[in-house]
Amino acid sequence: MAAAPSESRLGEFDIIARYFAPIAAAFPGALGLKDDAALFDPPPGARFVVTADAMVAGVHFLADDPPDLIARKLMRANLSDLAAKGAIPHACLLTITLPEDTGEPWIAAYARGLAADAAEFAMPLAGGDTTATPGPLTLSLTAIGLVPEGRAPLLRSAAQVGDRVFVTGTIGDAHLGLAIQRGEFFGLDGDHRAALIDRYRLPQPRVAFGQALAALGPRKVHAAADVSDGLVADLGHICEASGVGARIALDRLPLSAAATAALAGAPLESCARLLSGGDDYEIVFTAPPDAAAEIVALAKALGIGVAELGEVLAKPGVDVVDAAGDSISLMRKGYRHF
Amino acid sequence: MAAAPSESRLGEFDIIARYFAPIAAAFPGALGLKDDAALFDPPPGARFVVTADAMVAGVHFLADDPPDLIARKLMRANLSDLAAKGAIPHACLLTITLPEDTGEPWIAAYARGLAADAAEFAMPLAGGDTTATPGPLTLSLTAIGLVPEGRAPLLRSAAQVGDRVFVTGTIGDAHLGLAIQRGEFFGLDGDHRAALIDRYRLPQPRVAFGQALAALGPRKVHAAADVSDGLVADLGHICEASGVGARIALDRLPLSAAATAALAGAPLESCARLLSGGDDYEIVFTAPPDAAAEIVALAKALGIGVAELGEVLAKPGVDVVDAAGDSISLMRKGYRHF
Repeated sequence: MAAAPSESRLGEFDIIARYFAPIAAAFPGALGLKDDAALFDPPPGARFVVTADAMVAGVHFLADDPPDLIARKLMRANLSDLAAKGAIPHACLLTITLPEDTGEPWIAAYARGLAADAAEFAMPLAGGDTTATPGPLTLSLTAIGLVPEGRAPLLRSAAQVGDRVFVTGTIGDAHLGLAIQRGEFFGLDGDHRAALIDRYRLPQPRVAFGQALAALGPRKVHAAADVSDGLVADLGHICEASGVGARIALDRLPLSAAATAALAGAPLESCARLLSGGDDYEIVFTAPPDAAAEIVALAKALGIGVAELGEVLAKPGVDVVDAAGDSISLMRKGYRHF
Repeated sequence: MAAAPSESRLGEFDIIARYFAPIAAAFPGALGLKDDAALFDPPPGARFVVTADAMVAGVHFLADDPPDLIARKLMRANLSDLAAKGAIPHACLLTITLPEDTGEPWIAAYARGLAADAAEFAMPLAGGDTTATPGPLTLSLTAIGLVPEGRAPLLRSAAQVGDRVFVTGTIGDAHLGLAIQRGEFFGLDGDHRAALIDRYRLPQPRVAFGQALAALGPRKVHAAADVSDGLVADLGHICEASGVGARIALDRLPLSAAATAALAGAPLESCARLLSGGDDYEIVFTAPPDAAAEIVALAKALGIGVAELGEVLAKPGVDVVDAAGDSISLMRKGYRHF
């Protein structure tokens, strides 16, 4: 780790030794965070899957969000990318640029969250960099996963015409959770509010399900992506990478009880809003129709919901249809209902 | 790559497709930057070496530095970490948070610099994330290197009492280059000024020499680190990780002609300043005395200077002595001369 010319008061090396080195203890290749790089010894025949995401205070999370949840959200956003590849979490590297007035309690709480998820998902810290910034807290995490010998990673580019489109869990909760924090849905009852805010703050990456999907093999599961940009955008990425299109039915969108309560009164327009909300960290994937029963059974065995939303078509683009079969046209970062 | 809720005007996906995807073309595992993660297939028996560094405008570089040089400096700082491990550059991931007023010409110039170094050092882009920030430009690069089968990576922790201490190239040029940009050394002639500023802006990581050192094997080369925090600090990291100390002679410090000219008149105190200056991106390493001749010959063959500075001792800490053999006490981030 390179020292910055300017550092937070605690000192870079103190922060690393006191707060981050314990999170690296489970990974020998981290060399106790006392070296400048980490060592990875791939198991024979394994592939590494590597992804990186950055998050900025005021853009991707609120600056006064609890620090342990900020740590976990960044970790889980990257875990979601690994999950959509079917990869087993292996280790991560964190670069953290701290505003100069960051106190030790904030750092301690951040490290607590990081340690909790490193343990929960078996993804220890392997290295990184700690420095100071005159700007907002900015974080970047590189997550490294493994795909064991004999298993193929799931890719965006493998969708085929005739596939069914599936998504795990529920869509739109995080979007509604953020809206609540910004003052919307004032009348919603407390339990529903808390549930939606929790989904915004603490994603539940589908790590086990992703690995199980990959284990089904490329005949039964074709393309996959995690839903971070919004369901339509991420299904669009699959379509673009695969050279196909898709049609999904709005009334098949899986909604949580809290989301259903929040949207009571304006279901269609509000559902459309959820399609581009983002931060769901579910997995959208495509599979041939004859694999549907096995996929549904697999999800049930793992205690995860899976909804069939529609199908893959030759015509490019993602078409969203209402209950009458009429298209709803969504703009890139919003939506418009004709 | 995950989209940010707020993006620069050009759009994240436009930036990736237009400017970053071409830099990924040489690395098939990057999947054209159209997926959320990159795939790495390790050659049999190889180890991966992974390092990450963050840089912030106004902290690690000046906000109005040429964008291509900012890109190359970040790349080279990470390449220097790989060099000190003896690793072969393989691929990198970049997360870039752009101020909202960043124009396309800036991005184009940044990508040009990144592309130049990706080609020069054979380290293509494999993935990353592009997002917007209300704060200063903040960059994080994760560099992945390979150590081939049968070769051991160089570590900080392998120094032994009786080793000689060596450093490549010259020390202090970047520190002086920054000082010049801040208004010091006003009387220095133009060529020397330009040479020192160039060393600050465009580090020359010792990638080939690091690999050659590792190829000599662990009997001939013991510990190594790159000099990014300052010579004394980084030699101190070696000593701490190895449970030893070191003594180096200030009058053996290798200085460039430009540094010598800049320091004329106050050589000793100014040399001491250079020991903690940082940004040298040289390699400091230790080796048994009987390997010295072979190491010097190797450096000569590669056209790189290597200076023997002193020796590894049992007593902890780094002791710097002047020509008379008297200790010079250096403070952590500065220096004090008794």
